[in-house]
Formats: sequence, structure tokens, C-alpha cells
Amino acid sequence: MLTKDGCLTRQARLWSTLPDSVDWVLITNPRHVKYFSNIWVNPVSFSAGQPVWLHLERSGKVTALADNFTLKSLSGEAYVDETVSETWYDGKHSVENRDLKPAHALKSHFGTLDYSMGAIECDSFPAAAFETVKGEPSNNISLGDVIKLLRRKKELDEVEHLKICMQACEAGHGAALEYVKPGVTDMDVYRHVHAAVLKQADRPCVVYGDFRATNAKLPKAGGLPVGYTLQQGDLFIIDYSVILDGYRSDFTNTIAVGEPSADQRDLMDACIASLETGEKSLKASVACKTIFDLCSDILVKVGFNPLSGHAGHGLGLEHPEPPAIVSESTDTLITGDVVTLEPSNFVPGIGGIRIERNYLITENGSENLSHHKISLA
Amino acid sequence: MLTKDGCLTRQARLWSTLPDSVDWVLITNPRHVKYFSNIWVNPVSFSAGQPVWLHLERSGKVTALADNFTLKSLSGEAYVDETVSETWYDGKHSVENRDLKPAHALKSHFGTLDYSMGAIECDSFPAAAFETVKGEPSNNISLGDVIKLLRRKKELDEVEHLKICMQACEAGHGAALEYVKPGVTDMDVYRHVHAAVLKQADRPCVVYGDFRATNAKLPKAGGLPVGYTLQQGDLFIIDYSVILDGYRSDFTNTIAVGEPSADQRDLMDACIASLETGEKSLKASVACKTIFDLCSDILVKVGFNPLSGHAGHGLGLEHPEPPAIVSESTDTLITGDVVTLEPSNFVPGIGGIRIERNYLITENGSENLSHHKISLA
Repeated sequence: MLTKDGCLTRQARLWSTLPDSVDWVLITNPRHVKYFSNIWVNPVSFSAGQPVWLHLERSGKVTALADNFTLKSLSGEAYVDETVSETWYDGKHSVENRDLKPAHALKSHFGTLDYSMGAIECDSFPAAAFETVKGEPSNNISLGDVIKLLRRKKELDEVEHLKICMQACEAGHGAALEYVKPGVTDMDVYRHVHAAVLKQADRPCVVYGDFRATNAKLPKAGGLPVGYTLQQGDLFIIDYSVILDGYRSDFTNTIAVGEPSADQRDLMDACIASLETGEKSLKASVACKTIFDLCSDILVKVGFNPLSGHAGHGLGLEHPEPPAIVSESTDTLITGDVVTLEPSNFVPGIGGIRIERNYLITENGSENLSHHKISLA
Repeated sequence: MLTKDGCLTRQARLWSTLPDSVDWVLITNPRHVKYFSNIWVNPVSFSAGQPVWLHLERSGKVTALADNFTLKSLSGEAYVDETVSETWYDGKHSVENRDLKPAHALKSHFGTLDYSMGAIECDSFPAAAFETVKGEPSNNISLGDVIKLLRRKKELDEVEHLKICMQACEAGHGAALEYVKPGVTDMDVYRHVHAAVLKQADRPCVVYGDFRATNAKLPKAGGLPVGYTLQQGDLFIIDYSVILDGYRSDFTNTIAVGEPSADQRDLMDACIASLETGEKSLKASVACKTIFDLCSDILVKVGFNPLSGHAGHGLGLEHPEPPAIVSESTDTLITGDVVTLEPSNFVPGIGGIRIERNYLITENGSENLSHHKISLA
């Protein structure tokens, strides 16, 4: 869970980037509402997807705006000074259109907002709510862009929360390594992993990713299970995320179905060499393109193809998010980035392998956040 | 899964409600994009929550607008004539703000939209995208309200899809009835139910609802598990939904932890009498207030309190959705409504019971869609 101190730190960082003329901001992207207030509408609830807005004032006052029913489905404590709740459903009366209740709450509480004094996250502020705003903005700040940039540097509470996601993800990988064998289906593996994740997380959560078999004839596959029965000789790629309150892990192992062949072991060794090479290069101020090249070149050096996809990416409230560790990247690592490295190779005649770990970038290197066993068996 | 015919029928119903001056509509609510095109961004994916928009023309042409990455996470076939994909992430380059990619797709494909000829679902059309629209609307249609009203009458494909959600939900209820006993936790029950649901659904899905113990001292409780260990004498309320592609079931049983007492049996009998009384009254053209009163009055007649909450509500792409079966309802049942009835009673000294079934409303009565066992043991 995010902490109140963490939310206040993030708010302070936001204010420090905005011109003095901005007295208030209206945050409408649910990820950013979480980021500044810990308010997160549980996706495992009847209010999944319903909006809560956040009005921040430079004086420090934080106001949440939502319908009364959505406020019943928050996951964790809300660090706000005031909550303006607009009744949508009271269990006694018929209901009207729910989607504009935050706008109604805004209007009932603030009257109209003076746009010349503030900034609105217009990427997700509905056009229908514009009647609550008067005047012209004194700036052309894209609040969404500003906040997305801030998000790269994870604060301590975010890292601690990410570690809880990682632990749940580790439990699922451990269970998969024991479970994968010829005759079970990819969906069986998903169910088995999901059960282990739920047990470790000890609360409902979302588990998504790749749970797919590859082999000599189909060396590359991705996505959710399709009902395929695993065969001796397959390589089963398990690349998944556990989302808790919006933040997520994202790491991978590839498991041999039955005894791995010598070629499969060589391919795994190459991917491990690529991962370890990338790991050693992780550090604030390093260009992401450089990391990509290092991960890719070592694969070629040991006799395999260069990386066909990305070497990694940022991770947090989204997936992928900046920085992009790719061949043409213009991004550079910063202290506080949380990134994944995920070298892969898909070889006709052998099969596909991807392995992956998650890291916190520090001034002098990185901290590995994921502690699952990377192993074919 | 929704069918192409079903989507075309729903589109035709929409056009029949709109004035002739409306040549095109832009749909932005994800539930409504699903409703008209079967496009649903899988919430069990890295693109959960990312928008896809739908441009419908009176001529029949349907165009989907989204970023390239979101289009990889659709659950099921998209019934559209054209898909305009705006590149967000190509695995080779750094990324920009993703959230406005549908607006960029709109601009690149249509230039600007002439608002005098169309209607926009402004409840979820972002203010930042308004630069793609020129002119003034020739009407003040609230497209969100119009579509929400259309949604009440479920088409055949929606009912068939809802039945698949119901079957997965039934499997979880069956598993719970076998599993609930003193010493297990509410979270253990959730995990057990989730596993049974996943096995029946045979694909990842979301399971949310109430998994909570009540008893003589705490007769009312709701929400996700809290880690409580079930005790002899508790009444465990399992009221949950299974979401598949946006549509959901919602039905309930209450299970006695250990041998139920005579009072608990009487309370269950009262709730069953309430449910059966409500069921008999379900029919198109009946006032929802009447159904509420019937469900509540029978409870009083057999010696318990009247209903404290709702007797039921509509169900489909949301939960609750109209009609509201409540004390002050102004709604009337229509053919094609899918509703739930869920009488409950929470009695200090005994505990709480809720039971629930889901029904399709027909001209002459109703069809029960949920076939779980309603039983204390």
C-alpha cells in the first residue's frame, strides 16, 4: 500500500514542476489518482472502471470526487482531506447515468472552476464535464505527460509495494516449476499459478501474461492459455504479472516439458548470459539503447540470433511504461526507475525461451526485485 | 461471446432512436464499444483500461480506433469494417503518452468530425480530443443515456453469453457448499471458489463479491474476504459475480458453518419464501416497487424484519444497472430485462442470510438463469 508520506512527496514533486500561476490541478486518470492519494477502485469489485477524481490545491488541500457507490469499493485508505460523494444508488430509488457523478460532485462542491488558475488532466476529463470549467487556461500544460514523467522515479513506498507484487509472482513461478509436465494443459498451468499467487497475496488480485508452449515447429507464442496440452520436448514460457492495487510485477521463466535437450540447454545458457550482461550494465545515466545492444550482442556472440523484440521496459502502474530498453531508444535510466530485462530467443528446430527479472535502478547499479528460480527444470 | 447479428441488431436499435440528422456517432464508453462491436479489452491483460473508440455511420460502416498495443489484447472477434490503429509501442522506439492514441487515430483517419452531422458519447470522450471536432451539434442527445436505456433489453446473444457466466458461477457455489466448515478462512473459501470458477470457465476471468461470515453478534457483513476464520454457528454469505468479457452473473447462497440452528433454518425458510414470492411476480410491465413490496411483506408476515436493502436490480455489463427493484423505484420491468432477486435478512442473535437468483424477464413471466443449490448445508 502506498503511504501518506509517499503521496505527499509525489504531490510536492508535481507542484515543483508546475508554474506558480497554477493554484489547483484536477487529476482524472485513475492511475494518477492512485499515485497522489492511494485511492484505487478495486478492479475485483462491482465498481471496476468507475472514475474517482482528485482536486489538488497548491495550499496542500486534497479533495476526492466520486459517486457514493464507487467509494464503497476502494482498495486501501484514501489520503485526502475531503471526500465529496454524489449519490448514485441508495438502495431505495431508481438510478440515473452514473458516469458523470464526479462532474456533478465537482459542480456541487466548487461551483465552477476558474481555468485561468489551474490545470486539468484533459486526457481523461470527459467533454461532457466541461460546463464546470470557466475561463481560459493560462498555460498549455499537458498534465498527463507531466505526471507520466514523474512516475518514472519510484518512491520508497512504491518500491515496497512492488516487492509485495513480486513475492506473489515468485510463489506462482515456484508452483509452475513443480507442476509443468507432459499431459497438463496451458490452462491447467494458469490455474495452478493463479492459486499459488492468491495464496501468497492473501487477497484477490489479477494475474495476466503469457502462458504458452513453444517447440521446434512453433518457436514463438504469447498470450493467455488456449487449451493446448503440453508435450514432451515443449518449452513452456511463463511470463506474467500480478497486479495489486494497480502496481504490478512482470517476470518470466521458461520450463522444459520433460527432459530438456542439449540445444534447449544451450539456448537457456545464452539467454542467461544475455540477462546477466544486461544486469551488469544497469545504472542511472546509462542509455537504454546501450543496454539493448549489450543484451543482443552477447546472443549473437554465442551463436544465436540477435534480440527480435525489446530487451526490457519500465514497470509500475503500467506495463510497459518508460523507459523503453529497445534498439532505437532515446531513453536514459534514472535513479528510481523500476525496469525489467527480458532477453528471449525463438529458434525453429529448438523452441522459444524468455527469461526475465525486475530491477530498481540506483545511482551505482541496480537492485534485483524478483527472486524466482530461472531454470528449465 | 456476442454475435455479429446481435451487434447489428443493437446498432439498428440505436439508429432507430436517433433523429435523421445524425449521420454518425462516436462511442467511447468501453461497455458500449463491446455492446455494438464485441470489442473488449481483456481486463486480464497489460492493456486493461486502455480505450478503444467506435465510429458508427448510419450507412452501416463501423470503424474501431485504438493504439496498436491495445488491439493485441482484445478478447474475442471484433465485428467492425475497419480498424484504425495508431502506433504507440513498436518494440523498437521510446513511447509517448498512450491515452490519446484513439484521438490521434480519429484525426489521422477522419481529419475533423463535423459535429453538426453527428453525436459523441461525451461522458467518456476526453476534453483533450475535442480539437478533432468542428462545428456545433444539431441536437443535445446524451448518447450515454440513450445507450444505457437500450441495454436493458438483452438480445439473444447477450443472454447466451450471460448463461456461460452463470455456469461458471454455479461451479463455484457447488464447490463452496462442499468446502465451507469451521476452521477455514473466508480467504480460503474465495480461493476455493475462484479455482472452481476458473476450471469451469476454462479461461481467465474476474471473480468479485461478498465472501463474509455473519453470526449472532455480527449479523451483517459484506465485501471481499478479510482473513476471518469461520466458526461453528456462523452463516457464511457467498454473493459473487463472474465476469467474462464484461458480462456478469450475480447470485448468492448462505451456508451454515457446522450444523445450522433451528432459528437459522427458519430465517432461511423466510428468505426462500421471499425469493419465491418475488419470482412469481416477475413479468414484463410489472412495477419494480410492487415486486419489492411483495418480497418484503412476506418476510414480515413470517415474523422477520422487512427488507433493509434492495430486493434486486438489473444485471449485464454493469452491476447494479436498471431496473432497480427497490422501495421507491419508478422502474417497470420490460421484456428482455435480466434481473436478480436477492432477499436478505440480518438478525441480531441469529446471523445474516442472503439468497439470490438471476432471471430473464419475458412477456408472461421469467426464466431462471442461475441453477445453483440454495441451501444452508
